[in-house]
Amino acid sequence: MSRRIRLGMVGGGNEAFIGAVHRIAARLDDRYELVAGALSSTPERARASGEALGLDPARSYDTFAAMAQREAQLEDGIEAVAIVTPNHVHYPAAQAFLTQGIHVICDKPLTSTLDDAKKLVAAAEKSDALFVLTHNYTGYPMIRQARAMVADGAIGKIRVVQVEYPQDWLTTPLEHEGLKQAEWRTDPERSGAGGCVGDIGTHAYNLAGFVTGLKGECLAADLHTFVEGRRVDDNVHVMLRYKGGARGMLWSSQVAPGNENALRLRVYGETGGLEWAQEDPNYLWHTPHGEPKRLLTRNGAGFTQPSTARIPPGHPEGYLEGFANLYAEAADLIEAKRAGQTPDHLLPTVQDGLAGVQFIDACVRSSRRNAAWVDL
Amino acid sequence: MSRRIRLGMVGGGNEAFIGAVHRIAARLDDRYELVAGALSSTPERARASGEALGLDPARSYDTFAAMAQREAQLEDGIEAVAIVTPNHVHYPAAQAFLTQGIHVICDKPLTSTLDDAKKLVAAAEKSDALFVLTHNYTGYPMIRQARAMVADGAIGKIRVVQVEYPQDWLTTPLEHEGLKQAEWRTDPERSGAGGCVGDIGTHAYNLAGFVTGLKGECLAADLHTFVEGRRVDDNVHVMLRYKGGARGMLWSSQVAPGNENALRLRVYGETGGLEWAQEDPNYLWHTPHGEPKRLLTRNGAGFTQPSTARIPPGHPEGYLEGFANLYAEAADLIEAKRAGQTPDHLLPTVQDGLAGVQFIDACVRSSRRNAAWVDL
Amino acid sequence: MSRRIRLGMVGGGNEAFIGAVHRIAARLDDRYELVAGALSSTPERARASGEALGLDPARSYDTFAAMAQREAQLEDGIEAVAIVTPNHVHYPAAQAFLTQGIHVICDKPLTSTLDDAKKLVAAAEKSDALFVLTHNYTGYPMIRQARAMVADGAIGKIRVVQVEYPQDWLTTPLEHEGLKQAEWRTDPERSGAGGCVGDIGTHAYNLAGFVTGLKGECLAADLHTFVEGRRVDDNVHVMLRYKGGARGMLWSSQVAPGNENALRLRVYGETGGLEWAQEDPNYLWHTPHGEPKRLLTRNGAGFTQPSTARIPPGHPEGYLEGFANLYAEAADLIEAKRAGQTPDHLLPTVQDGLAGVQFIDACVRSSRRNAAWVDL
Amino acid sequence: MSRRIRLGMVGGGNEAFIGAVHRIAARLDDRYELVAGALSSTPERARASGEALGLDPARSYDTFAAMAQREAQLEDGIEAVAIVTPNHVHYPAAQAFLTQGIHVICDKPLTSTLDDAKKLVAAAEKSDALFVLTHNYTGYPMIRQARAMVADGAIGKIRVVQVEYPQDWLTTPLEHEGLKQAEWRTDPERSGAGGCVGDIGTHAYNLAGFVTGLKGECLAADLHTFVEGRRVDDNVHVMLRYKGGARGMLWSSQVAPGNENALRLRVYGETGGLEWAQEDPNYLWHTPHGEPKRLLTRNGAGFTQPSTARIPPGHPEGYLEGFANLYAEAADLIEAKRAGQTPDHLLPTVQDGLAGVQFIDACVRSSRRNAAWVDL
Repeated sequence: MSRRIRLGMVGGGNEAFIGAVHRIAARLDDRYELVAGALSSTPERARASGEALGLDPARSYDTFAAMAQREAQLEDGIEAVAIVTPNHVHYPAAQAFLTQGIHVICDKPLTSTLDDAKKLVAAAEKSDALFVLTHNYTGYPMIRQARAMVADGAIGKIRVVQVEYPQDWLTTPLEHEGLKQAEWRTDPERSGAGGCVGDIGTHAYNLAGFVTGLKGECLAADLHTFVEGRRVDDNVHVMLRYKGGARGMLWSSQVAPGNENALRLRVYGETGGLEWAQEDPNYLWHTPHGEPKRLLTRNGAGFTQPSTARIPPGHPEGYLEGFANLYAEAADLIEAKRAGQTPDHLLPTVQDGLAGVQFIDACVRSSRRNAAWVDL
Repeated sequence: MSRRIRLGMVGGGNEAFIGAVHRIAARLDDRYELVAGALSSTPERARASGEALGLDPARSYDTFAAMAQREAQLEDGIEAVAIVTPNHVHYPAAQAFLTQGIHVICDKPLTSTLDDAKKLVAAAEKSDALFVLTHNYTGYPMIRQARAMVADGAIGKIRVVQVEYPQDWLTTPLEHEGLKQAEWRTDPERSGAGGCVGDIGTHAYNLAGFVTGLKGECLAADLHTFVEGRRVDDNVHVMLRYKGGARGMLWSSQVAPGNENALRLRVYGETGGLEWAQEDPNYLWHTPHGEPKRLLTRNGAGFTQPSTARIPPGHPEGYLEGFANLYAEAADLIEAKRAGQTPDHLLPTVQDGLAGVQFIDACVRSSRRNAAWVDL
Repeated sequence: MSRRIRLGMVGGGNEAFIGAVHRIAARLDDRYELVAGALSSTPERARASGEALGLDPARSYDTFAAMAQREAQLEDGIEAVAIVTPNHVHYPAAQAFLTQGIHVICDKPLTSTLDDAKKLVAAAEKSDALFVLTHNYTGYPMIRQARAMVADGAIGKIRVVQVEYPQDWLTTPLEHEGLKQAEWRTDPERSGAGGCVGDIGTHAYNLAGFVTGLKGECLAADLHTFVEGRRVDDNVHVMLRYKGGARGMLWSSQVAPGNENALRLRVYGETGGLEWAQEDPNYLWHTPHGEPKRLLTRNGAGFTQPSTARIPPGHPEGYLEGFANLYAEAADLIEAKRAGQTPDHLLPTVQDGLAGVQFIDACVRSSRRNAAWVDL
Repeated sequence: MSRRIRLGMVGGGNEAFIGAVHRIAARLDDRYELVAGALSSTPERARASGEALGLDPARSYDTFAAMAQREAQLEDGIEAVAIVTPNHVHYPAAQAFLTQGIHVICDKPLTSTLDDAKKLVAAAEKSDALFVLTHNYTGYPMIRQARAMVADGAIGKIRVVQVEYPQDWLTTPLEHEGLKQAEWRTDPERSGAGGCVGDIGTHAYNLAGFVTGLKGECLAADLHTFVEGRRVDDNVHVMLRYKGGARGMLWSSQVAPGNENALRLRVYGETGGLEWAQEDPNYLWHTPHGEPKRLLTRNGAGFTQPSTARIPPGHPEGYLEGFANLYAEAADLIEAKRAGQTPDHLLPTVQDGLAGVQFIDACVRSSRRNAAWVDL
């Protein structure tokens, strides 16, 4: 566990959402060390972001090209790079690092055009370096469980695949109100010809394939733009036929009020079904035909993918984040104390601890007296 | 963000569950650096665990006493220590570090006896260092939200507080089957007079107080041991009266089959209620009397605690762990490649990326042809 | 099926809620015919209610005493009577009919005082007639299923029984605002010494006993009145010890905002658990220890109580009411037509039917042309 | 309320499911009296079924034609007829009664062919009698609520309509195993060209139109038969375009294990959404964009359709069936007593009532003694 892989990052500067997610993900198991970055397409912002992350200024680059070239020459240069830019930068950036033999971990979708995608495949095949795409939903423990169950024949030959990924955040024309996340995602130059279909439809399609092992054969798609003036689709209806005979539907939308990130997969085979929802990800329904439904839980009875699951069943994975909040606030408090300040805080204190032990003591005392009332 | 606090750890060696959780929590926001440890009560195991974590051998101690003494003398000695041992060690360990002016982050319950708890309060008050207790459920975003809403009067003066924390893992006498986690928790010498009440009842009690701001006044408790031969309680029934007139019930159990970590809090006031369940932690029900129930979500509409929530609404907090699984597996693959191996893996590849772009392309082509079937 | 039992009713006049429910229940399976009534304690209201229900005026009585006496002498007098009055009338009314050998179907709780209850037991034992108490929750199919499973040993010897029945309708002092339902329920003269505990706490207690087969041994209760000026309890906290060693808690409340009729039972034994909620009554969780949870459904796989379940699984029992709404509205329309009127309505028409067949036809046409778009 | 409409029935003999449902629905509100029938296409079975239902033998007909003709001549002949046969009989039967001026209440789909449907429309238009189609899901209270909210503009102009109705009962070839329900539904001669699409797809399509008020414009459908040897479709994928610009998807299936009758409708407009599921029918989600989701309940706050809802909020509509089970079992017991038998039963008795009053009494006694333990 002790060696950490030297990691660089392209994109992911101050304002970006997904860059911070990649950094947390890299840090969670302590397997990576972020040592270099070209964190923004604007050099000034790139440098400011590097400083905020504590990068060595000499390794905070203005462009990914400069970074790829120089890091390849350093003895302790980066071994891998995370590419977290808008879609149209994926290909040139990945290409630059693959050429230098640096492993690439790249956000999805692969590229903004099919042409770029094919070129990137060629580049990856030519390079000795690894290429990993972060279709992150494939990393959920219950998705691994579902995939393993399908492969083991738990539901028989697959017939029907229903997958959907509705959101609501683009119900109104946010791209005209200065929201950067909305701007590039609705700009065909940066996101590609697909809007909603590229941003989240690909996640849904990938997930269905990952779990079922099926390849798509053909499809009929009805893309539509509901918000006036929007330049890409914001609602996606697709009928799918898979190789081998399965049929499916895919719905993704960014204009469905009340849906935050409601990715949901349902797969039905000749002898049973599986159902999973990303918003409640620690659970997987297994519905063997003719028997009661069963609810599988991460690390619970019947779970076979322990390597993907860090904590016991019943602790949702947010457990770690809740814990981390206390550590982060304790860090704030420690730093404040160092600076001679004593801010208000919500952390449990030694008095809270005393109250807890008093509670235990009172319970034991009361119970020993046949549940008499005792003071706390 | 760039400075990291130097952290030590007492307990949390190889076999322990909660030590790894504390380390992940400390790492998640990159605010701490683990640099020293006394990771087990057995010196050999302590050293082996230190090595596994990549600690400098000179700072991997046999005892917490040695660690406290020496680290206090180092120029770059630890600033804070996480204590994650069985309960009976909390007091002596905390005391050792507080005396040296080192901040303490300590697992709950505070101590195994009321006497120790009072001594620890005195030690904390005498020391200049901070003392933080990890009642980790208080760190969940929706719990912070609930507390803020109660304080803002969203449900009026509180009348009824129902809190429960059932588990099922001690339904059978696991402590006689060699499970270390079960052994110390059911040993009054190490856990204190309370079994279930100390281990999880305190979490429930603390959470109720954290959200409501109420102090307990008196209680009537019916502790019971259902599993034959068990030395501490495994089921806890308590009726509570709070200062100011509210009434409550608390149930915790470790023998309730089907309950993993089903901590659940329901609070009812004169004008409304709040309901939260740890196993579905990203949601909070608000039930204003005479209006439809409302479901609040982390980072969704009406959420006021952004500092505690790292990702957008609808991404359960397990999102980060799913992402981290990909990074961890990519690290495995990178290391394997370094070693000249090419293991099987489940990571999305450039071919998956191509398939995704082909999917987008096919959707756009089909849609442009009025949803005609097109090949993938 | 063809013979219908001649039924009378005491109470249940125009304003009453539960009388109408009893009449629907009696009619649902076409086993009863309502032929007589003493429908209100006020003679005028009694007669008006009888007329509204289409009773023969000669058999619409001013008092239950008159009704009992006369009906017993008629050749085709009532065979059974439903008593649906406030609690304090249960005993004298039941006594009057039992004495005459008329079967009694009586609402719960049995009486308003323990004294009356004992006298009623004596009267029932002396009479040759049957006495049935409508603890109606015992009639739910999944409750019958749960009882049968407990009896069959599906969860082993029972350890813990958690039952609760919170409501919110008395969060404010409705009894001072002229609501009749609230008035008599909060008047100790009519409801008895218990308020919430008598009205719904008894349902919870009865249900726990029905499913588990356990008898209570002793209890410790904390009844409380939160709403100022209320004369009976509105929140009930009870710890229970059952004969044979099981322990339990019971919570009932009428001041818990957001709870409509949230009766819920959870039972845990040595080898598994069962969980049921009245607001989602067609489902029963079975949690065998060490296996995934299973969701049993009414008439679904594993269900063994078909005599209690009229419709297929997946049709909630509200299915019948939805159907009945169409029949009721069709009756309105038929009567309106008879009166020469043509009111607006929401019933599906022959045009809707045509649209449906056109939909089928279009689906078939489109599918035969490889899912080409076709007009509807 | 006192006048009851004279009703006849075509189909619905002993083995049929839906006939019994229609009879219960007709009886629930006491608005109809069943007085005539042609209950089966087999004369013997028709007569046996009539006897079982207690029909006057003179009004239990061998054919619907005879029934239509004779009833029309009786002074107290039927005013309305319920047609609950397989689909191919709907047209000739309806036609026969409409011609005689008898109101028709007919099961869906309207007919088995488009041709018949058009002829039936003509017949209905020519007749003075009413024609009502039992698309029964339109009768659910929360569906009426949803329709009213859409009409009131609660979610703005509609954009996306997702409707689905999956079942699992035809996952295996039951029609070859002698199940009558499966036989006629998979026989194109009796059910029409559509299998799943006619049986339940029409329900889904009708429901979407009922709630949204939208008319379909065109559709692209992919019908498929998964079970070998089946003569009609058993899975239905449809993309829909509605007049006015909304888009939709419809999925119905009879081969989706784990789905009983999982009819579900989701509608999204410019300012909000509505979501309803038939298996949990007493609830309706309203998701105004940019605000927390709200859960509306039948007869709860904000509900505006009281005429469709017989019981208070929180009592699922199955409440009436649970109640009716007690009445039915009491009827059994009364009849058994008449016959001199004393069978076992599960009905609450006077002893249960005494136990309940003892419970209340014990609670009051304990509470008055500060929650001391008291014996039951």
